[in-house]
Amino acid sequence: MTTSAALLTLNDPDTPFAVVDVHRARRNARRLESRLDRLGVRLRPHVKTAKSLPVAALMQPGGPGPITVSTLAEAEAFADGGYTDITYAVGIDPHKLPRVLALLRRGVTLRVLLDSPEQAAAIARTAHEAGTPIPALIEVDCDGHRGGVTVDDPSLVGIGRTLHDAGCLSGVLVHAGESYFATTPSDRRKAAANERDAAVAAAERLRAEGFHVDTVSVGSTPTAHAAEDLTGVTEVRAGNYVFFDLVMAGLGVCRLDDLALSVVVTVIGHRPEHGWILTDGGWMAMSRDRGTADQAQDQGYGLVTDVRGNLLPGLVMSGASQEHGILSARDGHALPDLPIGTRLRVLPNHACATAAQHRGYHVVDSGEPDAGRSAPAVRAVWERVGGW
Amino acid sequence: MTTSAALLTLNDPDTPFAVVDVHRARRNARRLESRLDRLGVRLRPHVKTAKSLPVAALMQPGGPGPITVSTLAEAEAFADGGYTDITYAVGIDPHKLPRVLALLRRGVTLRVLLDSPEQAAAIARTAHEAGTPIPALIEVDCDGHRGGVTVDDPSLVGIGRTLHDAGCLSGVLVHAGESYFATTPSDRRKAAANERDAAVAAAERLRAEGFHVDTVSVGSTPTAHAAEDLTGVTEVRAGNYVFFDLVMAGLGVCRLDDLALSVVVTVIGHRPEHGWILTDGGWMAMSRDRGTADQAQDQGYGLVTDVRGNLLPGLVMSGASQEHGILSARDGHALPDLPIGTRLRVLPNHACATAAQHRGYHVVDSGEPDAGRSAPAVRAVWERVGGW
Repeated sequence: MTTSAALLTLNDPDTPFAVVDVHRARRNARRLESRLDRLGVRLRPHVKTAKSLPVAALMQPGGPGPITVSTLAEAEAFADGGYTDITYAVGIDPHKLPRVLALLRRGVTLRVLLDSPEQAAAIARTAHEAGTPIPALIEVDCDGHRGGVTVDDPSLVGIGRTLHDAGCLSGVLVHAGESYFATTPSDRRKAAANERDAAVAAAERLRAEGFHVDTVSVGSTPTAHAAEDLTGVTEVRAGNYVFFDLVMAGLGVCRLDDLALSVVVTVIGHRPEHGWILTDGGWMAMSRDRGTADQAQDQGYGLVTDVRGNLLPGLVMSGASQEHGILSARDGHALPDLPIGTRLRVLPNHACATAAQHRGYHVVDSGEPDAGRSAPAVRAVWERVGGW
Repeated sequence: MTTSAALLTLNDPDTPFAVVDVHRARRNARRLESRLDRLGVRLRPHVKTAKSLPVAALMQPGGPGPITVSTLAEAEAFADGGYTDITYAVGIDPHKLPRVLALLRRGVTLRVLLDSPEQAAAIARTAHEAGTPIPALIEVDCDGHRGGVTVDDPSLVGIGRTLHDAGCLSGVLVHAGESYFATTPSDRRKAAANERDAAVAAAERLRAEGFHVDTVSVGSTPTAHAAEDLTGVTEVRAGNYVFFDLVMAGLGVCRLDDLALSVVVTVIGHRPEHGWILTDGGWMAMSRDRGTADQAQDQGYGLVTDVRGNLLPGLVMSGASQEHGILSARDGHALPDLPIGTRLRVLPNHACATAAQHRGYHVVDSGEPDAGRSAPAVRAVWERVGGW
């Protein structure tokens, strides 16, 4: 409970809690921004990973720009924060259109997503009744991982026509779901080219019918970091890149020292006969995500660092119950001596899932000196947007 | 958006959202309560599953009684709600003792848990300095699944002595972690007997030293439903039983029609070429918990019912991304015709994990008639306690 300065440090709040290192987050944001600047395409960050206005501000230091959201709750919270160009990138449930209309009437350009004639008809009807066009993107599937119509699906033009006739057609959107399984740079370049090709081909099919297509949107964190040519694309979406995580490091999209999100936990017990150190951070703090389970290196529930962020080699969070974590040493490594009360940080498999277990972030800056403090200073506490 | 009566129904709120069926929850609560009445042992419900004062009230219709919590945030919220007998059943981090003392000074009997001489010394020192005894339970391990000292560990008596001398020894606590993998009634009876034997033996070892032991606490949902003789035990802890889930149904501890928690989702797309129905409920709504993956019947991310709760045979939530669910038909079953906009309910693998993804519950009562409504009426919205 002691503080060596006016600022709190990571030794002060009760554990577990989530930490964002803004030095790394800023570096990650600049890296992708400058990459896409070179490719001449604008970035529309996905705020679903951090769900935090201050993190979004760090992704767009020039002030609110175009963003992507995964829920209407995010759209509403970011609209409150001054964002006026928002894409809701989950297929629209027509029941949610009243909230979409309310945002449009506030002056927010909220684009919705769809991939069926039924949704297109519902949007056209609702827009007509409301007297308010609802800008819509047609989801195009490039690799069979989730929703979308394929480029050669006959319904693509029919959906486009319904939206065009209603004054609601904005463009097309593609997400390369396969890229999360692309373990080589070459595979990710191919996934990025495939994603772009599908988006551009779909846009051209619609334009050939005489429809205006203003948005050709692609993106995923792996393809955004791999694309070499985005000709014909108007924007790239990515979200995870601001925090990165062990899944992205396992793919080779980032390095371990790029990971900007971690969870501070405390040692609460030892079971030397099992080779275990017990902590107070279980799946409630880390999530149940085991995204590295099928990668070449399974990272359990996460890798472990000291409270300053230095990796403890060979130590892995191997088990989790609701409020207990189990740390074990990998083969060839000794279990370190970590007395009860020791604070550690766990780097997560999947930043989106781990962040979602928390209501906010304690913010540190590894680019600033510690000034003799026993642990990194807490520079701010940032809230997350929750719910739907 | 239409309502056929003054009450909202499950067709009204935007999806996804969590639903509690109080008819089933009450029946589940009564079942365990009357079982333990017959065994002559009092129940100390674990509130970590629901984290909700109204759900706890349903577990203890007579008013606030003894409860178990998994976080100090729960302890504080339930103390605010009038609960004065609380066991915090996660090994204590000494850094958290100021909050423990604050609760004790409010008149709450808050028992903490520990399994090491270091924690016992910290508690004795803090209690001495504060002039306030801190009642403590020694965690005893009966099956090697998490923390605890074994009954024959020489440190058991030393820990007991430190606590006894400081006026802080309350008793012992055991949790049969193996019971979550006990797939036959006979195995669960054995796990329950083993849990009781360890608790009673540990208490007797401490009493043989002349220490007063008032609490001999055992429990898990599977063993609470299997124990046949709890002689020497003073209380049973269980939490999941109020909701149950597919893991418990897979073990045979409950039936599918006992499951009181579900998540309402909406169909947002179809990929007939993959055999998929897409919904707006992904892992953010269900959690990443795949607790049935290692059971005889893997249930994916959950089983699917219509909005009234009738099981759709052979339909399973087979995939999840953040805000998308994928439903598939099992072998031998046809994919049902579920148009866009159809509302469904998904029964979760693990109620504790799924409930934690939500900030509250919409409450329905399957014991009350629908009165011609298009879907079950929403009788209340109950909040959850969050954070740590």
